[in-house]
Amino acid sequence: MRKKILVIHGPNLNLLGEREPEFYGKTSLESINKKMSDIAEKNNIVLEIYQTNYEGEIVEIIHKKRTWADLIVINPAAYTHTSIAVRDALLAVKIPVIEVHLSNIYSRESFRHKSMISDIALGVISGFGEESYFMALDAAKKIIFT
Amino acid sequence: MRKKILVIHGPNLNLLGEREPEFYGKTSLESINKKMSDIAEKNNIVLEIYQTNYEGEIVEIIHKKRTWADLIVINPAAYTHTSIAVRDALLAVKIPVIEVHLSNIYSRESFRHKSMISDIALGVISGFGEESYFMALDAAKKIIFT
Amino acid sequence: MRKKILVIHGPNLNLLGEREPEFYGKTSLESINKKMSDIAEKNNIVLEIYQTNYEGEIVEIIHKKRTWADLIVINPAAYTHTSIAVRDALLAVKIPVIEVHLSNIYSRESFRHKSMISDIALGVISGFGEESYFMALDAAKKIIFT
Amino acid sequence: MRKKILVIHGPNLNLLGEREPEFYGKTSLESINKKMSDIAEKNNIVLEIYQTNYEGEIVEIIHKKRTWADLIVINPAAYTHTSIAVRDALLAVKIPVIEVHLSNIYSRESFRHKSMISDIALGVISGFGEESYFMALDAAKKIIFT
Amino acid sequence: MRKKILVIHGPNLNLLGEREPEFYGKTSLESINKKMSDIAEKNNIVLEIYQTNYEGEIVEIIHKKRTWADLIVINPAAYTHTSIAVRDALLAVKIPVIEVHLSNIYSRESFRHKSMISDIALGVISGFGEESYFMALDAAKKIIFT
Amino acid sequence: MRKKILVIHGPNLNLLGEREPEFYGKTSLESINKKMSDIAEKNNIVLEIYQTNYEGEIVEIIHKKRTWADLIVINPAAYTHTSIAVRDALLAVKIPVIEVHLSNIYSRESFRHKSMISDIALGVISGFGEESYFMALDAAKKIIFT
Amino acid sequence: MRKKILVIHGPNLNLLGEREPEFYGKTSLESINKKMSDIAEKNNIVLEIYQTNYEGEIVEIIHKKRTWADLIVINPAAYTHTSIAVRDALLAVKIPVIEVHLSNIYSRESFRHKSMISDIALGVISGFGEESYFMALDAAKKIIFT
Amino acid sequence: MRKKILVIHGPNLNLLGEREPEFYGKTSLESINKKMSDIAEKNNIVLEIYQTNYEGEIVEIIHKKRTWADLIVINPAAYTHTSIAVRDALLAVKIPVIEVHLSNIYSRESFRHKSMISDIALGVISGFGEESYFMALDAAKKIIFT
Amino acid sequence: MRKKILVIHGPNLNLLGEREPEFYGKTSLESINKKMSDIAEKNNIVLEIYQTNYEGEIVEIIHKKRTWADLIVINPAAYTHTSIAVRDALLAVKIPVIEVHLSNIYSRESFRHKSMISDIALGVISGFGEESYFMALDAAKKIIFT
Amino acid sequence: MRKKILVIHGPNLNLLGEREPEFYGKTSLESINKKMSDIAEKNNIVLEIYQTNYEGEIVEIIHKKRTWADLIVINPAAYTHTSIAVRDALLAVKIPVIEVHLSNIYSRESFRHKSMISDIALGVISGFGEESYFMALDAAKKIIFT
Amino acid sequence: MRKKILVIHGPNLNLLGEREPEFYGKTSLESINKKMSDIAEKNNIVLEIYQTNYEGEIVEIIHKKRTWADLIVINPAAYTHTSIAVRDALLAVKIPVIEVHLSNIYSRESFRHKSMISDIALGVISGFGEESYFMALDAAKKIIFT
Amino acid sequence: MRKKILVIHGPNLNLLGEREPEFYGKTSLESINKKMSDIAEKNNIVLEIYQTNYEGEIVEIIHKKRTWADLIVINPAAYTHTSIAVRDALLAVKIPVIEVHLSNIYSRESFRHKSMISDIALGVISGFGEESYFMALDAAKKIIFT
Repeated sequence: MRKKILVIHGPNLNLLGEREPEFYGKTSLESINKKMSDIAEKNNIVLEIYQTNYEGEIVEIIHKKRTWADLIVINPAAYTHTSIAVRDALLAVKIPVIEVHLSNIYSRESFRHKSMISDIALGVISGFGEESYFMALDAAKKIIFT
Repeated sequence: MRKKILVIHGPNLNLLGEREPEFYGKTSLESINKKMSDIAEKNNIVLEIYQTNYEGEIVEIIHKKRTWADLIVINPAAYTHTSIAVRDALLAVKIPVIEVHLSNIYSRESFRHKSMISDIALGVISGFGEESYFMALDAAKKIIFT
Repeated sequence: MRKKILVIHGPNLNLLGEREPEFYGKTSLESINKKMSDIAEKNNIVLEIYQTNYEGEIVEIIHKKRTWADLIVINPAAYTHTSIAVRDALLAVKIPVIEVHLSNIYSRESFRHKSMISDIALGVISGFGEESYFMALDAAKKIIFT
Repeated sequence: MRKKILVIHGPNLNLLGEREPEFYGKTSLESINKKMSDIAEKNNIVLEIYQTNYEGEIVEIIHKKRTWADLIVINPAAYTHTSIAVRDALLAVKIPVIEVHLSNIYSRESFRHKSMISDIALGVISGFGEESYFMALDAAKKIIFT
Repeated sequence: MRKKILVIHGPNLNLLGEREPEFYGKTSLESINKKMSDIAEKNNIVLEIYQTNYEGEIVEIIHKKRTWADLIVINPAAYTHTSIAVRDALLAVKIPVIEVHLSNIYSRESFRHKSMISDIALGVISGFGEESYFMALDAAKKIIFT
Repeated sequence: MRKKILVIHGPNLNLLGEREPEFYGKTSLESINKKMSDIAEKNNIVLEIYQTNYEGEIVEIIHKKRTWADLIVINPAAYTHTSIAVRDALLAVKIPVIEVHLSNIYSRESFRHKSMISDIALGVISGFGEESYFMALDAAKKIIFT
Repeated sequence: MRKKILVIHGPNLNLLGEREPEFYGKTSLESINKKMSDIAEKNNIVLEIYQTNYEGEIVEIIHKKRTWADLIVINPAAYTHTSIAVRDALLAVKIPVIEVHLSNIYSRESFRHKSMISDIALGVISGFGEESYFMALDAAKKIIFT
Repeated sequence: MRKKILVIHGPNLNLLGEREPEFYGKTSLESINKKMSDIAEKNNIVLEIYQTNYEGEIVEIIHKKRTWADLIVINPAAYTHTSIAVRDALLAVKIPVIEVHLSNIYSRESFRHKSMISDIALGVISGFGEESYFMALDAAKKIIFT
Repeated sequence: MRKKILVIHGPNLNLLGEREPEFYGKTSLESINKKMSDIAEKNNIVLEIYQTNYEGEIVEIIHKKRTWADLIVINPAAYTHTSIAVRDALLAVKIPVIEVHLSNIYSRESFRHKSMISDIALGVISGFGEESYFMALDAAKKIIFT
Repeated sequence: MRKKILVIHGPNLNLLGEREPEFYGKTSLESINKKMSDIAEKNNIVLEIYQTNYEGEIVEIIHKKRTWADLIVINPAAYTHTSIAVRDALLAVKIPVIEVHLSNIYSRESFRHKSMISDIALGVISGFGEESYFMALDAAKKIIFT
Repeated sequence: MRKKILVIHGPNLNLLGEREPEFYGKTSLESINKKMSDIAEKNNIVLEIYQTNYEGEIVEIIHKKRTWADLIVINPAAYTHTSIAVRDALLAVKIPVIEVHLSNIYSRESFRHKSMISDIALGVISGFGEESYFMALDAAKKIIFT
Repeated sequence: MRKKILVIHGPNLNLLGEREPEFYGKTSLESINKKMSDIAEKNNIVLEIYQTNYEGEIVEIIHKKRTWADLIVINPAAYTHTSIAVRDALLAVKIPVIEVHLSNIYSRESFRHKSMISDIALGVISGFGEESYFMALDAAKKIIFT
């Protein structure tokens, strides 16, 4: 049976490409999603991708996919630093999680240095622009096939 | 006229029974709600029960029931520790509030030790599993009938 | 072409007039909105006004109006102190922002002294009741016409 | 064999009824103890109740009753926030503990927000006046009979 | 009888126009004072304006005008963040106070984020350049005539 | 009827005269008590003086004398900085309290700078050696006779 | 030769009697000074009394009287909590200092709990209203005559 | 004349052997005391050993033995981290002190990392189980005989 | 010309495979280095790999390779959290840096959460075991060829 | 044209020579000023030297000399650690500043470790007694002539 | 087979005897090492002793001896408080560790109160001068032979 | 006999001239050393200059030169903020120390504001580029010849 990966983009990521390009690059989210789907296709992985600006909706996406997904790739964006609800949802479903950030969160405002997710994630990738996502897929592939 | 209690379950509580049973027990939310309804019935109390994963929806449930409810029993779950919006909603409606937690929040991660609700609640019950809710109903009964 | 101002009211402000009048005054939100519309009308400014209790919806209103609005007047209420998502949305759209508070946030609980928005706002007005909004419109007028 | 519960009242609780009634209510400790004994009687539980103003004596009561008690209901009052000795005594005897407070400790001075006992207690009940004790007995009953 | 407003400019504001124009704008203090006097004139308000670089002199101006002034508009500049003496003077005279800042103090060094005055002021206006003063007068007018 | 003052000396004060004379002086506690009794006598005040090394006993002395004493002069010594129990006892009995220290607690280890009693005391006298007690009696006299 | 005491009143104390009487009492500074002079007279002590609202002037008074005064009684008021300059002046002249406060600074805002003077003072008297000064004179008398 | 050592065991140590053996080992206090007496005997040292659960009693034991003891070996247990009274007693009697802990206090809860005694002790031994006491006696022997 | 990558392993990484396998996995450093060399080979990249336990030596390796390397992949291990010297070396040479960790540093002791390198790195990869290095090479390849 | 240096001595420096010689040395301020004038003379530099105990006056001296001075040598003494007003004055005039301290401020009370001036100064010299000033002049000479 | 103990002396200990004798005593390191060797000899234990001033070298000594040593006695000196690298080396080799200090680290500068080693050590001995080492050997002997 | 000064340059200073010239200037270390040697020559002082990137080597240089040097001029660079080992070495040898920094450490990252050396140095010079060293030599000369 094919392996399944859930990808979740947090708030404001729908504006990617036009939002603060010095931090987030110039590629649109659609373009990143397309590339991720291609990578998944090539590796025989099923991918479902969601973007939402609602903390509660991230929680519900995780809930709904909890028996479906083999691994979660999540960029919780602003909710990275404040959301215990997303943390609790991830703790509840017990699926391995890779945390991804486009920008290097450690070189920005100090309130972005603390993540509510990192300590329960399998691993963290931060600062490689869109490449962060592809690296995550790459790592995910090796994790779910071993 | 019959007294009315509003019960609000916060984020991730819909997963009760399958989510981290070492903290939250093995009973489902439906089962807890059923038992609460039975207790209410026996005590001639009207009960309305809501669960939501959205901070904003908790705020709106409180608003909508503000002239209906005589008392609120709330388990704000993850929002306990972060939501000033829920605090403000409770402050706005001025209905007595009982704060309830299934797990003992004081024996977990330090960010769970601080509640944004406790200081404006009438009382707090934490750590008795589903029993926490029944104890809250019991206390509520005595409060609204005196 | 007429200038356009986006006004956003955060959580619990829909209860204005009945909610803690010692902090927020006795005027309803409708009445304030009406007066703002009148002021806008007189100054040949187009006004769109939103109120929501959802953090995610504030983010989306800002997104949707990002090519329309010349300036944003926002009272993020409880989200003032906790929302990096709203901050990020404002950073993303790069429209000048005026932060408004009905009550004097500095004379209340210490967690209300810190704003996640103030340092990226053009200016802050706090404590003048409904007048805070009208002062904001007044300042906005001068900013967008110069 | 009948189940046995040890009840410990900490410092200043002997003044109950005349001491700061806005926090602690107007009932005397004798009256609360009487009601607890009645509840125990009805539930076929043996109850022993102690009050002391000495930290060391709380430690010794716990020691002495360590093979007798099936559960401890304790209101450590002022020692809640400072006593590692009482914590160590409870850790040493390994009997389930319910922590009880008459007043809502979270709405008072900040040094009362931290409990040295909560994280090792089974559960915490705070803010329901004398009812806090009866709720504790109620919960205790269910715990020791399952 | 005509209403009276006392305006106090704190240290370094005499250099306005040449001092760090990126924060404080290019207008001189004289020019701002002139515009304020015009606004006062039009609204039939008597205005007295003082600038001093001495903390002690701010205290004494407040003392001397304590039976004369109906409202104080103060920009305490550097003393905003350090002066308990000015705070005490304002507390002593019990005249309503509007705190004004040319620059947005929240977007500068962290020691400028804390004001010793804000919590006892009626309201705070920060970041609108010279306009901050005119908005303060506007608000003052409505406050002293109601 | 003659006025009555309760004097309480906290832990280690029984060693006065031989204990760290650079902080506490060379006079014995007996000698200080004798002088206090003389002063009381002259002013027609009844004095009862206690010294104890037990936190719990301070609590109980306060309880026992709660209907007898018109004012309490207390030097809680080491318990000054740690005892919520003594604070609660003083809060419970609602008798005016004067806090006294032989040494200047502000010029010693930083953990001695914080008092759990000062904010609920009528006044504090610190650093005048045995004279601190006599000054307290002097102040007490004026307070209880007005 | 007659002994000499320098008395310094800090900022805002000139308003005594009309300023926040719940903290500072209803007596005027003149009346307190008069009573102090009478006490001094009776004890054959020369008294010089100054009040200033300027931190710099307190420094200079201390300098000018440094060879004249045998003891300094100072109520630095607001400067208590912020002035290293006054501290340095007192350190420089090496005259024994008694710190006096009318109100109990420990029961007010937290920034009033810290004194820059206490650790270098001989002793501190706080909270006895005008009596604080007379107690200080009394203590001073004993110190300078031994 | 034979040298004399005072040994003090703090609260809960009477339960040694049955209390949390993973931290404190399985030996009883009696057995440790017996071994210490044997060691003392062999080295021609007089030993007096006390155990108490009362902070105040530790203070009084130190007082009573202050002219008798040449050295104090103390395991203040829970009072290690909270008792200024015990610290003051040790400071008062000026006898060299060795601080002993059965468990390694640095590898437990963070509130056990701070000792109120260590900085005034001659030395500290922590983590060697009952052996900690024997090492202390060994060190004590060398200290008092040189 | 072929691109060149400098790989630096910090202290204790030479023990890889036998050191705490629950954090660092069971592969030896030699094996990881071999795999990295293979990847480099395939991508036509020159690789130099160093391991040292000396902070100073990391500094000097960076210095020596400063004109040679196009990119640095560094796992500073323990020095991640303490070394300003390594940070300064990286700042001095101005070569893009990728920070790599085998274990998830955010789920371990709190002193491992802070990195002295992250804010000046291009990106950070943490928690994927040996895979972290291969992901870094992969990202490096894309960075140096664009 | 000859270069011009403004020298400012802060509060209490007028007492130099008699004030705490263990920190500040035994030379008088006059003597230091004389030596500085000689050095200036030799280097063909015009020197103006001020001493004041008023924070406001330091601000005004800086203002008055803002078009005259090529460089400022300032020893703000006590105001070093508290004065945002002096900082703002220096920021306003944009003249290079050398901060000078007679004593080593880093080896004294912790509140002297933080300077409000250092981060905006060109350089800092601390701890060399009167020599600190001469070193500053020496450095100043090189700076203003290059 | 004979048991083997590795002894490591950290930085600056080579100066023992001439370095700050008030903290470290007057005995040279050679003399201490000699006495340790004698004790080992008598107890049929093989001892290897190293001193180094390099953090990296401590790490490497631990590595090299990791299959040889049965127990490590280490005085990490200055590295006690800063070295995660030494901590990691000790964690990696999993040999029981005894931490030793000549001086009482708790009675010195506050940055010496925190040890990066204590929580992973078997036990800690601090403050007994050279005797600390001999006590460690004594304890080591009992540990490795049981 | 000629006086002798030991100059120590810490890590990364060997890159001077090419490393971050905005902070450290464009002169090479060789050039600075040359100028220092010339100054020494002229003043009949013997100079030995070392640069190392190893913390341990700084310690050993200090040890080796401890009977040779009359004064140490040290720029500990990155180790300024972290090295207790260097501090201990300087404390051990008791030679007067001048701390030197090329850049103004107070205007950079906050972790550079704290020096582990300043409080034990004779004086500190920071921010004058290469001139900092020459000023140090100048001060050194006066110190060692008096």
